[in-house]
Amino acid sequence: MTTTRADGRTPDQLRPITIERGWSSQAEGSALISFGGTKVLCTASFTGGVPRWLTGKGKGWVTAEYAMLPRATNSRGDRESVKGRIGGRTHEISRLIGRALRAVVDTKALGENTIVIDCDVLQADGGTRTAAITGAYVALADAIEWGREKKFIAQRSQVLSDSVAAVSVGIIDGVPMLDLPYVEDVRAETDMNVVVTGGGKFVEVQGTAEGAPFDKAELDALLALAVAGAAELREHQLAALGRDA
Amino acid sequence: MTTTRADGRTPDQLRPITIERGWSSQAEGSALISFGGTKVLCTASFTGGVPRWLTGKGKGWVTAEYAMLPRATNSRGDRESVKGRIGGRTHEISRLIGRALRAVVDTKALGENTIVIDCDVLQADGGTRTAAITGAYVALADAIEWGREKKFIAQRSQVLSDSVAAVSVGIIDGVPMLDLPYVEDVRAETDMNVVVTGGGKFVEVQGTAEGAPFDKAELDALLALAVAGAAELREHQLAALGRDA
Amino acid sequence: MTTTRADGRTPDQLRPITIERGWSSQAEGSALISFGGTKVLCTASFTGGVPRWLTGKGKGWVTAEYAMLPRATNSRGDRESVKGRIGGRTHEISRLIGRALRAVVDTKALGENTIVIDCDVLQADGGTRTAAITGAYVALADAIEWGREKKFIAQRSQVLSDSVAAVSVGIIDGVPMLDLPYVEDVRAETDMNVVVTGGGKFVEVQGTAEGAPFDKAELDALLALAVAGAAELREHQLAALGRDA
Amino acid sequence: MTTTRADGRTPDQLRPITIERGWSSQAEGSALISFGGTKVLCTASFTGGVPRWLTGKGKGWVTAEYAMLPRATNSRGDRESVKGRIGGRTHEISRLIGRALRAVVDTKALGENTIVIDCDVLQADGGTRTAAITGAYVALADAIEWGREKKFIAQRSQVLSDSVAAVSVGIIDGVPMLDLPYVEDVRAETDMNVVVTGGGKFVEVQGTAEGAPFDKAELDALLALAVAGAAELREHQLAALGRDA
Amino acid sequence: MTTTRADGRTPDQLRPITIERGWSSQAEGSALISFGGTKVLCTASFTGGVPRWLTGKGKGWVTAEYAMLPRATNSRGDRESVKGRIGGRTHEISRLIGRALRAVVDTKALGENTIVIDCDVLQADGGTRTAAITGAYVALADAIEWGREKKFIAQRSQVLSDSVAAVSVGIIDGVPMLDLPYVEDVRAETDMNVVVTGGGKFVEVQGTAEGAPFDKAELDALLALAVAGAAELREHQLAALGRDA
Amino acid sequence: MTTTRADGRTPDQLRPITIERGWSSQAEGSALISFGGTKVLCTASFTGGVPRWLTGKGKGWVTAEYAMLPRATNSRGDRESVKGRIGGRTHEISRLIGRALRAVVDTKALGENTIVIDCDVLQADGGTRTAAITGAYVALADAIEWGREKKFIAQRSQVLSDSVAAVSVGIIDGVPMLDLPYVEDVRAETDMNVVVTGGGKFVEVQGTAEGAPFDKAELDALLALAVAGAAELREHQLAALGRDA
Repeated sequence: MTTTRADGRTPDQLRPITIERGWSSQAEGSALISFGGTKVLCTASFTGGVPRWLTGKGKGWVTAEYAMLPRATNSRGDRESVKGRIGGRTHEISRLIGRALRAVVDTKALGENTIVIDCDVLQADGGTRTAAITGAYVALADAIEWGREKKFIAQRSQVLSDSVAAVSVGIIDGVPMLDLPYVEDVRAETDMNVVVTGGGKFVEVQGTAEGAPFDKAELDALLALAVAGAAELREHQLAALGRDA
Repeated sequence: MTTTRADGRTPDQLRPITIERGWSSQAEGSALISFGGTKVLCTASFTGGVPRWLTGKGKGWVTAEYAMLPRATNSRGDRESVKGRIGGRTHEISRLIGRALRAVVDTKALGENTIVIDCDVLQADGGTRTAAITGAYVALADAIEWGREKKFIAQRSQVLSDSVAAVSVGIIDGVPMLDLPYVEDVRAETDMNVVVTGGGKFVEVQGTAEGAPFDKAELDALLALAVAGAAELREHQLAALGRDA
Repeated sequence: MTTTRADGRTPDQLRPITIERGWSSQAEGSALISFGGTKVLCTASFTGGVPRWLTGKGKGWVTAEYAMLPRATNSRGDRESVKGRIGGRTHEISRLIGRALRAVVDTKALGENTIVIDCDVLQADGGTRTAAITGAYVALADAIEWGREKKFIAQRSQVLSDSVAAVSVGIIDGVPMLDLPYVEDVRAETDMNVVVTGGGKFVEVQGTAEGAPFDKAELDALLALAVAGAAELREHQLAALGRDA
Repeated sequence: MTTTRADGRTPDQLRPITIERGWSSQAEGSALISFGGTKVLCTASFTGGVPRWLTGKGKGWVTAEYAMLPRATNSRGDRESVKGRIGGRTHEISRLIGRALRAVVDTKALGENTIVIDCDVLQADGGTRTAAITGAYVALADAIEWGREKKFIAQRSQVLSDSVAAVSVGIIDGVPMLDLPYVEDVRAETDMNVVVTGGGKFVEVQGTAEGAPFDKAELDALLALAVAGAAELREHQLAALGRDA
Repeated sequence: MTTTRADGRTPDQLRPITIERGWSSQAEGSALISFGGTKVLCTASFTGGVPRWLTGKGKGWVTAEYAMLPRATNSRGDRESVKGRIGGRTHEISRLIGRALRAVVDTKALGENTIVIDCDVLQADGGTRTAAITGAYVALADAIEWGREKKFIAQRSQVLSDSVAAVSVGIIDGVPMLDLPYVEDVRAETDMNVVVTGGGKFVEVQGTAEGAPFDKAELDALLALAVAGAAELREHQLAALGRDA
Repeated sequence: MTTTRADGRTPDQLRPITIERGWSSQAEGSALISFGGTKVLCTASFTGGVPRWLTGKGKGWVTAEYAMLPRATNSRGDRESVKGRIGGRTHEISRLIGRALRAVVDTKALGENTIVIDCDVLQADGGTRTAAITGAYVALADAIEWGREKKFIAQRSQVLSDSVAAVSVGIIDGVPMLDLPYVEDVRAETDMNVVVTGGGKFVEVQGTAEGAPFDKAELDALLALAVAGAAELREHQLAALGRDA
């Protein structure tokens, strides 16, 4: 493909990915992940016990909260704490991250323990939700190890059934492209976030026509790009966790 | 297909659909839509002018708000007005409905006018967001006609580029099924909401693995079911609006 | 009387009243009531147990919540859930409905059970609070029957001591009139809502001078109209419930 | 009448009434009023101009806000500012006070000026809303004088058409009684708040059956007591304002 | 010193101080305190038991809430209950009062009991937080006595280790001055609130440069003034409590 | 001094200080500052224009917002956005930072421009407010330079009159110590935060007796430590900004 992107990438190329595992000295698991200029701090907080509505069912709970610092973006936004309410976008992304992680967690194997993943966007340049999911997996994996070491989780329990990563794809000027930065995101005719397991299956497919509606062929092209991109992200996750692919 | 569903439908069959156009004597457009036991009252409110951030750009604005009556469901939920905050699910669905409608609206042709669509679920039995979108289109079409009659919109303006409808699909016991009622929805391994234009293109594809992740073949089967279901819903919309397909 | 009203009624005539009992298939009791163009959906939710502050006192609890859909009125109002707070008018009417119903409920006979009545105004044309009370009684009666069948309430318990209904009255151009629609309501010099038991006694009398203060003779005339109107409403309630007067 | 009340009063006797006019050195009008142990600080704030929705109509605006200090009552209640929302009772009483005052104000004569009356209950022993209305009238009268002196209001404008006062009445053990303290209020079978002009006409009649419903004869007896009590309160108001009856 | 202050005081002179102990007939302890035109009603509410997070530790809890009536100041401010949130200044002062009181309370001697001090500013003319602390001590002392009489507190327990009072100081036109009224407060280059025990030690020193930063010599001069002023306030506290110094 | 501290420092020694200037690629000024394990991201957002209440006065505005990520601390705290209200501590610290910065800003020289400083604590180990002020100064200085380059600020305007830094001091086991980490902070008998200009004068002195009240000699010792610590912090600020002391 010969299309030139603003940052010189080919359409099927990810931005530079870095994962700084264990960034926080307080959390049971953490990762500072970058997808190019997008930087998200993911921390995992492990606590024994579960919310009241789950007590006594022998199952654990994994949930996530997403937020953006007020000046993560190019112009400052009001803090949601100051506005006194959480916006729809924040809610929606928090719920997406939680579902994505739970898709690879065996809550029975986790036992009656709770893990809360906080994904705070320190700097935003497109793809914050996909970076958040990808980094959250690393923080989650470490928090589960912590729980195992502290005997909250049984030694032989297989809590994670697979890894999970996410990436955005979109059609710009008719060309399907991988991992959109902000300047591409606002121009995309169709925008899709795809959450994929290490095994290459779909956990979540969210495609939206921003301009013209899209057809099946376009959808297929985008999904193929996303699956390939997610496989690369998996390599980064495993490397950060010090494991072989 | 021989799978029997709780209500006797085949996997590719919609529930009984009714659209009571003009239910409200106050709103500029309205429809009380039923997908089986799910009943949603959709009203469209037309006002001249646009929000401040859009003023002077020669474009209109279409937005939507979704809500559920406290006893729409089997057990009563607290009112969001009483809790003092709107839940994540409500926000997410309101945003989805708005995006779905805007995908078929030419905001320049609408001129500097605002249409707010309220979708209030009077009774919920699965698929409330898809019923809402399908009914909202009817209310929207009537509100646009109202605006034309009152000279808010130019006579020859083609505001709607197409119709739009939505339907849920899911995999239950390995079988892809169309238009899930609540009892099926909670059992679905994969759950997908698909928004489709009259022309058969996608506006929004939202698929979620509730149990195991899904593969490309399953995704394809679900999309095919949804496209066929949406075509049927289009017939109901046109009939309600008194138009030929 | 020869005064002509906008809709051709005599001053002592109610608008057309309809009560669609059992409108909801989810609630333990329900009624969709119309006073002319005013339509209120009343649902009664029965749950075993009482709020903590009432536990162990051998008494039940009946309460109500009133709300209006945003486009129930002629111009759209903001949702209270979006504003994040419930307005004074909403609060006031919810409290009024609750008091009206509790006046005919023997909470000891109800036992430690809770009934919440939701009154959601789908369309508003004056008199929404009085329609709500009148419809709520029907929903309440059915919810009590449900509780008896499900053995939450003792078989011989007489929970309801009487029926209850409500109607608005007002003075327009010096003439006392019954059951005001919106166009009359805004013109009324004095506006009164009266809650009356089946036995013709007062549960609540709320009279307000909107223009000039009123004297005792005017008050007496209004009360007489209201008592007669409430007696008619009682007939509608009994008919809906399938009982003889 | 021979019924003995807890504080030795006859049924038709008010509690000791005091009105300390001009208590605040900051407000344009103020009164610290006592009905026995009930003490309410009423301040009137005068500002030129009106809320936006009233601009340019040549009319003024009078509104009121009622609140209770957390330890005004026998056991401490949470502050509404801490709870983050105003309760239904507070809203209801604020609205009642505003309506009562507006009934004697000619808003055209007031001109485009706003008067806000704050009624803060420093100590509560029954009848706080009636004491608030009675004291608010005094604060309002002084604020209007202030506006006249400062030339906000035309010299010859007759802003107040009459005085206004309020008192509670109720039936206890079958006996109608005037001006109930807390211990009587909780025992009353019927409870009524009546707002009366100096001319003896009704502005607001709010009667509620707390126990058994009440009949017309009881209503009449209560209203007669209230009218007589309000006439006495008028004497106190005029004395405080330094005027002859 | 020859500097003349607006109200004729010398720089090291307090405004007229009055403490009306037992103002409230409802609270377990109370004081209406005036520092010149500043009037604060302090009430202490005693309840057996402690908040959940303190249960079972054998310690009591003392906390405070500060608020201002809307028209305590020269122009009316919106109620925090109406705004739905407490402002930063209110929070800050509430926390300061609580810390000041806890500094002289032996929470073990208090036993598992809670005292909440409400400080409501009825009229504000500078120094409201210092008047609040000074009056709160009197209310607190009486509430502790009440707890002892009611056997909530052991007879020989020494709950209060000392008295506590507070006063503002500031530099105006280069001259350090004691107890600033509003007109001086807004002109002060440096503003300091000092909380001092009966024994003359510091509990809290809060100095802020409003204009130019201040040096050590200025700080020392202000602290000396404050310590002397607090000693005088202690005399007023003891007199109000009917004790010898 | 021979007292050994947990981390081996002498009582008058700061923790390792790092200032990463320009951490954010979006903000007009930024610094990631560390005081040992405490890490605060400070960003400065420059916008032309001022809040409405300041318009037309020829002055600019500098304000600050402080917040903590939920897992900045050892156990996770709820997000203030989720709770829907900002806590007293957050408010108090935001106000402190704003006052500290304004003390060295000439708002006339700034012109009608606004600078908002966000201080988000990524990791907390004591002294977060003092680190925030010290880092905020660096971000502020760069934002002012940005404004000058973009011609929002006149070329020769001297906006900053001095630098400003802050540090905590406290008495532990009777020994005054500089720059307390969390483990020392919770043990301190007296805790003080001191804001000092580059010229060594005080902007803010906030001392609190956490245990026993403190005397003048202790206060003097703490202030001396703080002034020396602040001078060292100034060196770090100047180095980060690439200037000579």
